Amino acid sequence: MTTLAATFSAVRDGTLMLAQPLSDEDCCVQSMPDASPVKWHLAHTTWFFETFILERFETDFRPFHPAFRVLFNSYYEGVGEQHPRAQRGLITRPSLSEVRAYRRNIDQRMQHVLAMPLSEQVSKELAMLVKLGLQHEQQHQELLLTDVKHLFSINPLKPAYKSEELVSDQLQRKGVLPTLQWQEFEAGIVEIGHAGAGFFFDNETPRHRQFIEKFSIATRLVSNREYRDFIEDDGYQNPLLWLAAGWDWLTQQRLTQPLYWQKSTNQFDPTWTEFTLYGMRSIALDQPITHISFFEAEAYARWAGARLPTEAEWECAANAVAPQDGDYFGQVWQWTSSSYAPYPGYAALAGAVGEYNGKFMANQYVLRGSSCATPAGHARLTYRNFFPATARWQFSGMRLARS
Amino acid sequence: MTTLAATFSAVRDGTLMLAQPLSDEDCCVQSMPDASPVKWHLAHTTWFFETFILERFETDFRPFHPAFRVLFNSYYEGVGEQHPRAQRGLITRPSLSEVRAYRRNIDQRMQHVLAMPLSEQVSKELAMLVKLGLQHEQQHQELLLTDVKHLFSINPLKPAYKSEELVSDQLQRKGVLPTLQWQEFEAGIVEIGHAGAGFFFDNETPRHRQFIEKFSIATRLVSNREYRDFIEDDGYQNPLLWLAAGWDWLTQQRLTQPLYWQKSTNQFDPTWTEFTLYGMRSIALDQPITHISFFEAEAYARWAGARLPTEAEWECAANAVAPQDGDYFGQVWQWTSSSYAPYPGYAALAGAVGEYNGKFMANQYVLRGSSCATPAGHARLTYRNFFPATARWQFSGMRLARS
Amino acid sequence: MTTLAATFSAVRDGTLMLAQPLSDEDCCVQSMPDASPVKWHLAHTTWFFETFILERFETDFRPFHPAFRVLFNSYYEGVGEQHPRAQRGLITRPSLSEVRAYRRNIDQRMQHVLAMPLSEQVSKELAMLVKLGLQHEQQHQELLLTDVKHLFSINPLKPAYKSEELVSDQLQRKGVLPTLQWQEFEAGIVEIGHAGAGFFFDNETPRHRQFIEKFSIATRLVSNREYRDFIEDDGYQNPLLWLAAGWDWLTQQRLTQPLYWQKSTNQFDPTWTEFTLYGMRSIALDQPITHISFFEAEAYARWAGARLPTEAEWECAANAVAPQDGDYFGQVWQWTSSSYAPYPGYAALAGAVGEYNGKFMANQYVLRGSSCATPAGHARLTYRNFFPATARWQFSGMRLARS
Amino acid sequence: MTTLAATFSAVRDGTLMLAQPLSDEDCCVQSMPDASPVKWHLAHTTWFFETFILERFETDFRPFHPAFRVLFNSYYEGVGEQHPRAQRGLITRPSLSEVRAYRRNIDQRMQHVLAMPLSEQVSKELAMLVKLGLQHEQQHQELLLTDVKHLFSINPLKPAYKSEELVSDQLQRKGVLPTLQWQEFEAGIVEIGHAGAGFFFDNETPRHRQFIEKFSIATRLVSNREYRDFIEDDGYQNPLLWLAAGWDWLTQQRLTQPLYWQKSTNQFDPTWTEFTLYGMRSIALDQPITHISFFEAEAYARWAGARLPTEAEWECAANAVAPQDGDYFGQVWQWTSSSYAPYPGYAALAGAVGEYNGKFMANQYVLRGSSCATPAGHARLTYRNFFPATARWQFSGMRLARS
Repeated sequence: MTTLAATFSAVRDGTLMLAQPLSDEDCCVQSMPDASPVKWHLAHTTWFFETFILERFETDFRPFHPAFRVLFNSYYEGVGEQHPRAQRGLITRPSLSEVRAYRRNIDQRMQHVLAMPLSEQVSKELAMLVKLGLQHEQQHQELLLTDVKHLFSINPLKPAYKSEELVSDQLQRKGVLPTLQWQEFEAGIVEIGHAGAGFFFDNETPRHRQFIEKFSIATRLVSNREYRDFIEDDGYQNPLLWLAAGWDWLTQQRLTQPLYWQKSTNQFDPTWTEFTLYGMRSIALDQPITHISFFEAEAYARWAGARLPTEAEWECAANAVAPQDGDYFGQVWQWTSSSYAPYPGYAALAGAVGEYNGKFMANQYVLRGSSCATPAGHARLTYRNFFPATARWQFSGMRLARS
Repeated sequence: MTTLAATFSAVRDGTLMLAQPLSDEDCCVQSMPDASPVKWHLAHTTWFFETFILERFETDFRPFHPAFRVLFNSYYEGVGEQHPRAQRGLITRPSLSEVRAYRRNIDQRMQHVLAMPLSEQVSKELAMLVKLGLQHEQQHQELLLTDVKHLFSINPLKPAYKSEELVSDQLQRKGVLPTLQWQEFEAGIVEIGHAGAGFFFDNETPRHRQFIEKFSIATRLVSNREYRDFIEDDGYQNPLLWLAAGWDWLTQQRLTQPLYWQKSTNQFDPTWTEFTLYGMRSIALDQPITHISFFEAEAYARWAGARLPTEAEWECAANAVAPQDGDYFGQVWQWTSSSYAPYPGYAALAGAVGEYNGKFMANQYVLRGSSCATPAGHARLTYRNFFPATARWQFSGMRLARS
Repeated sequence: MTTLAATFSAVRDGTLMLAQPLSDEDCCVQSMPDASPVKWHLAHTTWFFETFILERFETDFRPFHPAFRVLFNSYYEGVGEQHPRAQRGLITRPSLSEVRAYRRNIDQRMQHVLAMPLSEQVSKELAMLVKLGLQHEQQHQELLLTDVKHLFSINPLKPAYKSEELVSDQLQRKGVLPTLQWQEFEAGIVEIGHAGAGFFFDNETPRHRQFIEKFSIATRLVSNREYRDFIEDDGYQNPLLWLAAGWDWLTQQRLTQPLYWQKSTNQFDPTWTEFTLYGMRSIALDQPITHISFFEAEAYARWAGARLPTEAEWECAANAVAPQDGDYFGQVWQWTSSSYAPYPGYAALAGAVGEYNGKFMANQYVLRGSSCATPAGHARLTYRNFFPATARWQFSGMRLARS
Repeated sequence: MTTLAATFSAVRDGTLMLAQPLSDEDCCVQSMPDASPVKWHLAHTTWFFETFILERFETDFRPFHPAFRVLFNSYYEGVGEQHPRAQRGLITRPSLSEVRAYRRNIDQRMQHVLAMPLSEQVSKELAMLVKLGLQHEQQHQELLLTDVKHLFSINPLKPAYKSEELVSDQLQRKGVLPTLQWQEFEAGIVEIGHAGAGFFFDNETPRHRQFIEKFSIATRLVSNREYRDFIEDDGYQNPLLWLAAGWDWLTQQRLTQPLYWQKSTNQFDPTWTEFTLYGMRSIALDQPITHISFFEAEAYARWAGARLPTEAEWECAANAVAPQDGDYFGQVWQWTSSSYAPYPGYAALAGAVGEYNGKFMANQYVLRGSSCATPAGHARLTYRNFFPATARWQFSGMRLARS
């Protein structure tokens, strides 16, 4: 059985491995306010353990560097001030090697804490926080990849994060999507949300009942080919397909395709290419569409005569499929029609760590499943990912539903 | 029994009566992009009848003025282009008297159409659209008042819309709020949404089942006194009480109180006043708080150890109270925690009129009940009003709930 | 001989006459922050006399309305606070008729003051301030017309301020421009700036010497025809013709022609029209180009192999031409290459009235001459008008020079 | 005698030496749109030689990397497109070491070209362009330091570029300023601008005559002590001291002191510190004020009962002082009251290199002299530096004048 200490090492090392193909410069820069520099991800995940665990469990706690408390605090008001989010990429000091030293120092101290003899109560509490920190680190592993992808995408040299051979299987092109079919579910009371053993975020609880009306859900994800047809049917030019806020956003930003798609300028051969972590590639038509916003997913669904599933519908359907028989996980996050809101009876964790999830429950939409960039073991049936309706730089795609 | 033609006249005249205390200048100006000039309200409600009824039912339809099709189209993409929303206040021509002439012309033609012999099917369809147009007009009657209030509030002369004696009973100060009590509801399946006879908007349907967990709801609205206590307990200075998006908005806008409140600058006598439709008044502490945003309502609830009700909880509770025994209607709209989303099985009306409600179902929150500015007869148990989380210029207040 | 009291009446009445074709609504609205509502012009010019003359010379001065001190203060920090410039158009109260009453009241009191027996010294001082106030009023008469023109231009109904027959001769189409010729001037010391009797603004003084190198100047203004050739030679698409700041502005604003020009959308008959105070008209090719910015004038000059004159060159040349033999005055203001700066030895007037001109001497360019909208008797050889390099809503055109 | 080839090596090496204390990360980031990353400076100066010399003089020219033509083009429209200025800091690839390789490659090829046998005419042309490129490189050496200073100043760790001992003498604290005296100049015709041998920028020509009225100029720069007195006399709170555009900028930006000054938060000991290239230091009261904008300099001068000199006055005065007897050079650039404009008869260089100076002649002000960061040998009596009126991150100070 794997000890928590071993898991800790494994997850922490995993983050460094993701940063391995990158130069100091690649790790320093922030391409947009939504994204963060890799160096900041490396430091912030470390800050999380230092702040929420070492500060509490070390007897003679001393911060690694007093300025890091502010520099690498993301948004925890309970911990104090934060460095302005949009200025994370201006921090050339501490250097990447200093941040690596910060990681080593905190890792050693964490191992020391994990080896301390503790009462069962305290030990349990510690384990809970360590697991939270590791799940947090895994979330940043995925963000690290999406943020690097965005950074490289706006570089005219279109650099590759890795060559296609070296990139992990996960991030490579998947096989062809099967024929779309509709799976029907009858109306009735279902239970959703986390229960039982295993890690979970507070926003997945409490498990509770919902009444769902009869619905059908697609047995597979929407493909690039299908989405291309939407584009070529003037989907981005027809306001009647869009939510009003989506149309305003679209016209203001002059959008005509998913985030990383490019149409060749040769009008006689208008092929589509897309930027990937291994460089520019022609669109693989039979793979799932990704890097679309909630607004784009919602408009596509209307065009296709369908709609997005609610998160309850999604969870109910995903629960009914054997993991090997569906593409609910490991390909693209799937937008749902559900606004991100507390479950009935929701209570945030106590203390500053309670700011983790709860305070973002406004003007965001829930995505379910997991993506090709989600670390192994991080996905969960009841997992609630959430982003604003315009976010596109995540591996976000869609699955259709209808009433 | 009142005929539709008589109702038509009554509602249309009601709008003109609301504009009666205002000068041509008052009616022309737009104080912010969210608000519209009174003249625009007068013209747009007329455009609605001209476009959706006369154009369809008049045999030799000719537009009153071809340019009005664009000028007074609010957001119906299916009808064509629209004059930019933020520039509605720059339209000094047509003049107010020309817009009044436009109203008279369309009203006469509407009466003619209403008097035409029609098949039962066509007659029913016409009646549906006329009722829709009248409900639409009533919505703009409320907006006219809130928009005038906003316009006058930013004028250093702080003009009154009417003197306190002349303002309708509705808009005057209400009696003292009773003691707050909590009414409990058991868990179970409830039905919400419109069913049966009577007018309704498409977004209130279909009536459908929801499972609600056990909850309690306050028997009365939150008062100015309670909200003042929140302010004086540094509610606007404590980030831990706020949703993250609310806190960002608050700090960027430097907000420290509800929209129309002012604190006297005399530090030894820090009394609160507020701007009303009859001028500046001292705060009536035992009346319901109003002109707060969703974010403020949500933060207040957290401070008070409670939460906002969902719209299903609200409808369930309002349904259980005799109209005369509660303050669910006629005082302030009440923010719910529910994001504005389609009910399961929702279908918009056919044609351009289908843009009325459906396309706004993103990034808005549902308010329930009705306000002191809502026209008599317009309120409904299943009515879903909606505004962005930062909107404050409506008569928006709150009622607490808890799990 | 005309008395000052009579001149006062004449100028003040002139302003009201300009407002005569306008409705209350037309007078209330502000079409952009650079422009002001007509009502504000009417009130501010009155405020000027009340603040700088009545407050000083009336023995028992009482303000007409205390709030007007702030509401109608344009930018005099020495007088106190100002209503925010961009919100001048939101002031529906006081009404236009109250502002007319304000004018009548101040005019009566001014006549009373003008009739008071005063010492010679005080009388002289009073006369100076009255003349300043009248020149100020005349400046606002021109602004009133340019601001109304802008307001009407963005109205889709394209209303006319007056019909072409009723508009003053001044504002009507002028005769054909003569052949362009170059007048040469030898190098040497010249004197520029005001000296002697007659009214002048402080910025025209002191008269001083400048050394001018040899130059030539065009005997007439640049025509619409010539400017159209620049446009059709892709002048707005060629960055090498533009100052860098001008090119940035141009591309950001997507400009391709002067402010009020419109190209017909019929690609087979691409005629140009322009908005005028008497409605849309086809371009009169042999009249002077107007409503261009400094950047456009400067780029046109480069395209034409010439340059803009300095203000010293302009004054020197204008001084050498008999008024009836040139078009230096009464058609369009002429951009010079001179940044608006103090003359050597410049001293602002004492007191708050000293803010009139001096504090604007940064990032603006000098225009010389006068326009078709300049009131009779207001133009002067040494007059220095000034606007930012991007301003286009004045009657601003150009005359070429070369070294 | 130093050959051009040797000078070339020396200047090019000088740039690398300035970058030597910096990490790859320090060199990659852009702290604001006005500043550029060090890596970009290193590459752009190289691009200048490649584009304007190698492309013309190499017989078989091949670009080092085709994408660099756009990436490192600053603003030369005649050369083609440019990478967006505000996104220079997002270019993590090419890496710093690739840019160093770029420099080595171009340097070798430049040495080869410099050693080629050429006709006298071609040789002269080459020499002119090489000298232009080296002066250009020296300008970027100064910018490199000011841009690094700005980057480090916004880092909460307040890193030092070098320790005080290692920083060049130039950048260290200077001796105490002498007593201020006024030197008088009589009215008359002077000649300004470059003439004779030696390098010059096109904007310094032609040498021409100006008439200057009698004036006095301060024998030394304004000191930190004097400027502190201005601050403590509420200079930043008094609108009457400021140009209107300066006051608007000031209040919008909430400025209360020069760019790098900080007031201690200890209200009982309100000492001033400033950020320098060797870290935070207490203000040296008897050294020249620096990092102030034109607006601040202009307001200070008004407060001090003086004014800024024109550039002609400055050049005339600087010309009259023995270099060792004044502080006209080598301390801080000195704002003049002169808008940056072409001298009479000015002609830009032919070709794309003509965009170097001429197209920026709008809305900028001339600074004269040179600063502690100006490379040795780069300063010149007739040198015209220019920045917008709000620029503060250069070593910009001031000298007083009066009429």
